[in-house]
Amino acid sequence: VSGGDGVRTVAIAGLGLIGGSLARDLAARGVRVLGADVDRGTVDAALCEGVLSAALGEDWGGLEDADVFVLAVPVRAAPALLESALPRLDGVRLITDAGSTKTSIVAAARRLGLGATFVGAHPLAGDHRSGWASSRPGSFDGATVYITPTDASTADAVSLARALWTSVGGMVTEIGVDEHDRRLAWTSHLPQVVSSVLAAALAEQGIARGDLGPGGRDVTRLAASSPAMWRDILADNAAAVADAIGAVERRLASIRTAIESGDEAAIRAWLADAKMWGAPPE
Amino acid sequence: VSGGDGVRTVAIAGLGLIGGSLARDLAARGVRVLGADVDRGTVDAALCEGVLSAALGEDWGGLEDADVFVLAVPVRAAPALLESALPRLDGVRLITDAGSTKTSIVAAARRLGLGATFVGAHPLAGDHRSGWASSRPGSFDGATVYITPTDASTADAVSLARALWTSVGGMVTEIGVDEHDRRLAWTSHLPQVVSSVLAAALAEQGIARGDLGPGGRDVTRLAASSPAMWRDILADNAAAVADAIGAVERRLASIRTAIESGDEAAIRAWLADAKMWGAPPE
Repeated sequence: VSGGDGVRTVAIAGLGLIGGSLARDLAARGVRVLGADVDRGTVDAALCEGVLSAALGEDWGGLEDADVFVLAVPVRAAPALLESALPRLDGVRLITDAGSTKTSIVAAARRLGLGATFVGAHPLAGDHRSGWASSRPGSFDGATVYITPTDASTADAVSLARALWTSVGGMVTEIGVDEHDRRLAWTSHLPQVVSSVLAAALAEQGIARGDLGPGGRDVTRLAASSPAMWRDILADNAAAVADAIGAVERRLASIRTAIESGDEAAIRAWLADAKMWGAPPE
Repeated sequence: VSGGDGVRTVAIAGLGLIGGSLARDLAARGVRVLGADVDRGTVDAALCEGVLSAALGEDWGGLEDADVFVLAVPVRAAPALLESALPRLDGVRLITDAGSTKTSIVAAARRLGLGATFVGAHPLAGDHRSGWASSRPGSFDGATVYITPTDASTADAVSLARALWTSVGGMVTEIGVDEHDRRLAWTSHLPQVVSSVLAAALAEQGIARGDLGPGGRDVTRLAASSPAMWRDILADNAAAVADAIGAVERRLASIRTAIESGDEAAIRAWLADAKMWGAPPE
């Protein structure tokens, strides 16, 4: 989003870790950024800091001026939000999002007649933090950004989606909608579940986070993620996430059995597989 | 270990992340540090960097000059090592260790007639790294250090164990031997198991660590830990670790069921419990 693509104005709904960081990076590159957030204080802060040129009004007033519209809200809030914005979207060349699941939002866009201009996106730039206060310039620098064009997408929309994320430093990869959600069940949703399950088990034992060493604090860091955001993601990708959880359950049971029976070769082999994955020899 | 306690020489067996870091901190405080490691290159490096005043010789030659002897080796190597050093330990006022389990080494010390001078210790300063190259000055600054005195321990040995770890910045907490191992099964051994199980499950799916976002990389960082060191720890604390793993298995199954059945209230409640634990409101 710079140079010859003609994009001058980007509207962003949701100014949290992802939406807020994107707003900062685009504004710093001279793009006119319009924004909205359920939290009025967030919009005021973003205006005051000069990141937003203007707030989007009631009933999405001002959105009709945008070349690009980005939904950076919890995944289950996105379809209704898109529907409410529909009357203002005629002139928008790219509608995109930043959600961790793609199937339901892509289906919603198509249902609303927005299949041509909607191209889903998912930057792998989130962590346990949330909200405007967690947004930072440069958050997408070097980050993988999945985009999920469909047969219905216009070449202009796909090209703008690439340009949008590339302009803020993202490494764009095209992926199918279904494949994205299956893949993310393993690479993102499963690690979140594992971290939060471990945290809840430790909480039940009366163990505080401060009782852990540096390594244990790493494993449980994601437990601080937003419950509402993650309830949405897990519910939206339920079948794939349940499969991935099942695989970890089976593996835990097998390792527990090896530990109980003193099968040190099996323990060592599993730990060596994990290390090979986590720190392959150079 | 400074001032009035009369400690001038500390011998350290094992110059990895923990032993090497302790050697660095003690040497920087003017303590004469003697060292040994299974890896001859490590001893050479520690001598060359001026961290060691001398290497411990064959058959532990030189150990008889030490006021304090620290075992910083894998937990299942420690008992045999202690036995081999026995002829040199008459004048040593404190024998201690840094292992992640305490039951077997405390029993071994007692069996060898070293119950008076042995006080187990466990600094919570480890992470996924290992070896001399991972040792750093200041690694214990602010870290919890458990010490496990028994009825047999002399007051001098307990006092020296406190002084040793306090001198390098540790926050010393006394804990019973059994209680330590039960507690660490949850606070340290379980996070390691969970991280390595997740890594092995992802490896099996053909997913690379680089496919994960920042949060997922945190959860799986411990997977790079030393397989030999962790096989020892898990085998040595098998019953307590198996109990802890079982608790995580049950919780994963319950969350998977909630996800499969669309029980969003249960999903949200669990995520909120985890967040409360991970990032309590201030």
